[in-house]
Amino acid sequence: MIIGQHLLIECHGQHANLDAGQLLALMERAAQAGGARVLSQHFHKFGEQGGVTGVLILAESHITVHTWPEHHYAAFDIFMCGDSQPSKAAAVITQHFPTATSHIKTMERSCPTGVNGPQAAAL
Amino acid sequence: MIIGQHLLIECHGQHANLDAGQLLALMERAAQAGGARVLSQHFHKFGEQGGVTGVLILAESHITVHTWPEHHYAAFDIFMCGDSQPSKAAAVITQHFPTATSHIKTMERSCPTGVNGPQAAAL
Repeated sequence: MIIGQHLLIECHGQHANLDAGQLLALMERAAQAGGARVLSQHFHKFGEQGGVTGVLILAESHITVHTWPEHHYAAFDIFMCGDSQPSKAAAVITQHFPTATSHIKTMERSCPTGVNGPQAAAL
Repeated sequence: MIIGQHLLIECHGQHANLDAGQLLALMERAAQAGGARVLSQHFHKFGEQGGVTGVLILAESHITVHTWPEHHYAAFDIFMCGDSQPSKAAAVITQHFPTATSHIKTMERSCPTGVNGPQAAAL
């Protein structure tokens, strides 16, 4: 049974230099584009020259970000369930800087009932 | 350049019935086993019969959980960078209920410099 989709988004370029407030605004726009509702947001800044970690807790799961300015790298993930549209949320993030390079992996999240393999024996 | 590993963990069984306090304790043990440091934790309970969403923000990235008791399903994800060992953290979670069924997907997180394909042209 598929519960939702989990998108892992790798960004090389300007995303890595966004501060916590800019990341929050971008992730809120992404959530809205995906039809998701933000319940709370939590950010942490790693020192003066360091990166940022941020999480939006959604009614439909979550969006997170971690940035490494020294590597020009930002790692987002979007997990959305129900009728939401995480690919639209991802598009807001990847299109924010048209000249940045981004790559998206989309994974289905599903309950492993009926998994084949050794773990299935534990059911 | 590989920055870290991102593990998506699907659990069918008792994990889905853990409350926020129990999930927090489990995720803190997982973080410790993986050699990670917890910076903050944030949980949300979805109504009396509903599931739980929880996030641990780590110095090494994050651990999240979303539960659907009605589907006997809990979805964890562990993103850890640096010298931490996310597979050890995942083992704490999956082995918590030996009779539950669990499935782990391990994804490398890396900066997409040198990506082949149309997006590379934007560099």
